[in-house]
Amino acid sequence: MRKIGLPEIEDIALGAALLGAGGGGDPYIGKLIAMGAVQECGEVTLLDPEEIPDDALIVPIAMMGAPTILGEKGVGGNEYKTLYDMVSKFYGKEIYAFMPIEAGGVNSMLPIAACARLGLPMVDADGMGRAFPELQMVTFTIGGVKATPMALTDEKGNCAIFNTITNKWTEELARAVTMSCGGSVSVSLFCVDGATLKKYAVKNIVTRSQKLGEAIRKVKDCNEETPEQNFLKSTEGFKLFKGKIVDVLRETKGAFNFGNVVLEGIGEYKGKNASVTFQNENLTAEVDGELLATTPDLICIVDTETFIPVTTDAIKYGKRVMVVGLKCFEMWRTQAGLELVGPGYFGCDTDYIPLEQRVKGSSINV
Amino acid sequence: MRKIGLPEIEDIALGAALLGAGGGGDPYIGKLIAMGAVQECGEVTLLDPEEIPDDALIVPIAMMGAPTILGEKGVGGNEYKTLYDMVSKFYGKEIYAFMPIEAGGVNSMLPIAACARLGLPMVDADGMGRAFPELQMVTFTIGGVKATPMALTDEKGNCAIFNTITNKWTEELARAVTMSCGGSVSVSLFCVDGATLKKYAVKNIVTRSQKLGEAIRKVKDCNEETPEQNFLKSTEGFKLFKGKIVDVLRETKGAFNFGNVVLEGIGEYKGKNASVTFQNENLTAEVDGELLATTPDLICIVDTETFIPVTTDAIKYGKRVMVVGLKCFEMWRTQAGLELVGPGYFGCDTDYIPLEQRVKGSSINV
Repeated sequence: MRKIGLPEIEDIALGAALLGAGGGGDPYIGKLIAMGAVQECGEVTLLDPEEIPDDALIVPIAMMGAPTILGEKGVGGNEYKTLYDMVSKFYGKEIYAFMPIEAGGVNSMLPIAACARLGLPMVDADGMGRAFPELQMVTFTIGGVKATPMALTDEKGNCAIFNTITNKWTEELARAVTMSCGGSVSVSLFCVDGATLKKYAVKNIVTRSQKLGEAIRKVKDCNEETPEQNFLKSTEGFKLFKGKIVDVLRETKGAFNFGNVVLEGIGEYKGKNASVTFQNENLTAEVDGELLATTPDLICIVDTETFIPVTTDAIKYGKRVMVVGLKCFEMWRTQAGLELVGPGYFGCDTDYIPLEQRVKGSSINV
Repeated sequence: MRKIGLPEIEDIALGAALLGAGGGGDPYIGKLIAMGAVQECGEVTLLDPEEIPDDALIVPIAMMGAPTILGEKGVGGNEYKTLYDMVSKFYGKEIYAFMPIEAGGVNSMLPIAACARLGLPMVDADGMGRAFPELQMVTFTIGGVKATPMALTDEKGNCAIFNTITNKWTEELARAVTMSCGGSVSVSLFCVDGATLKKYAVKNIVTRSQKLGEAIRKVKDCNEETPEQNFLKSTEGFKLFKGKIVDVLRETKGAFNFGNVVLEGIGEYKGKNASVTFQNENLTAEVDGELLATTPDLICIVDTETFIPVTTDAIKYGKRVMVVGLKCFEMWRTQAGLELVGPGYFGCDTDYIPLEQRVKGSSINV
């Protein structure tokens, strides 16, 4: 158990944006929402998953919809109380703690705001260890947990609670209401008890985000290594490419951002070319036609100077970036995990090979 | 208190189709659903509104979406139990009785099926006394009752419960989910207590439907009068026109059927022309350019031979029909009523003048 205040939020937002793997929304917006709530209502208590009683009701809090819309529409602040009341009434039970469901610039932050406003603790865990585009892509799904009862509310006070036969149906119905509510809403879903949490959650991901954020912030505070070496060491990242963005193809289909980033090598990668495909989050990274990483491993694009993560929204012509691979949570590498979030699910015609093996066996030696 | 069995359902379906005023769906489909449930589970007890305790929880049951889709998709039979459970849990209270919310071929029938399947009584009342196209067009709205909590379920078992800031938002969100569920769902909305029911409901409308149905069925069982005289007398209808349908314009906009029926006079109306506009239900009836009836009065189109009501879906070139006006429920004629369902709301550029006055002052004398 420890407290999260303003300095911790700065680092968590930065680190979570890296774990967002290109998605997860703008950490600046997320950070403002969390900081506003903490300034107004006080610090948040972070609980280790092992501190949670087995029968405690744990409720993930997130936003659904387009993070860019959240930036314009904002949150009202009363959403979390509304969600609490709906879920608590549904279960006939008090909620023990909130938690994030995914790592990312926005969804790592909203549960902090929710906990601050309601005086509830937050669990140091999430259900992805990164960001993914679809609602059912959660480790709890592997554990047979349903997304519903899913509670949804907008900043105006409209709310709904869903109970669906599959998580795909939850996605379908909740997405329709999200659109009608203007494209961004607050939700709670995948409610779990403490025992399930301990078995299936990605533990200590908030602490990991914070450490990653701290590492990026201090990336130049080292005399023995270059900032890049320092960054790769502290993030346990695999350098996949460095280059200048020369083209970005974007397509919005079914409320997702699909696209492809084309890079021209710089420095030690001069003369080589790379491309990164994405569906909200980065899906594959290829150098000179050779795949170096695929989902569910994390493909992160960071600025070559500041090492600050660049989300797919912020990808622009001319920007100089490094493409970095991070190993995903081990449960995603099981067969059940790969069925949910492996390259095949996203229509990439390749088997999943762990990032570290792809890099080791690669002909791209720099 | 009395029982409703198969013969009563036949007549109620027929009479309710007349009160549907062109909308309300196909009474054949509705009848089959109600009869199937009664054959399987037994007759339904019909309660007079005055028999209901003031604090009893009364829940209207209806379908939302396109009645034509209901004909293809059907209902599963478990929807009513699901709705019961959701609403009962929401209020923390048993449901005393179901009721219909509108008169019409389908929505007069589904509450009978629901009551039969759950062994609940049905109240002899509804919230319109006819059919209307939008969710908030209910006498309970005049009484300040909200549509929500609104429970919704599809035949597959997906369900949601809405709580919205206005009835317009209920319409918006529930409509979006209805579309995602395939275009037709079962709902409960405008839950009321017994006291509110007695104050605002359209009382004894089930009995009235049954009497109208009986009158149509027996329209030729009279020696002193022609069937037409008999029909007009027993329905208290105003004959507005008789003609052959020579054109039908249809447009589907925002999940509503808009349109205009053009008629060429026959018999005593030879040489005259008429038109009836509709938005799901018939909105206005005009003869030789003179308005003879507008919403909220009921404009019904019936076959000239059988006097069976013709819904807007079934309007076809060449059909010979009579256009009949029926007075609407008195609460619709108040200012509050006309704001909700008067000609102005539907974009018709005319003041509301009661049907009987329009007909009396008309130059169309036949």
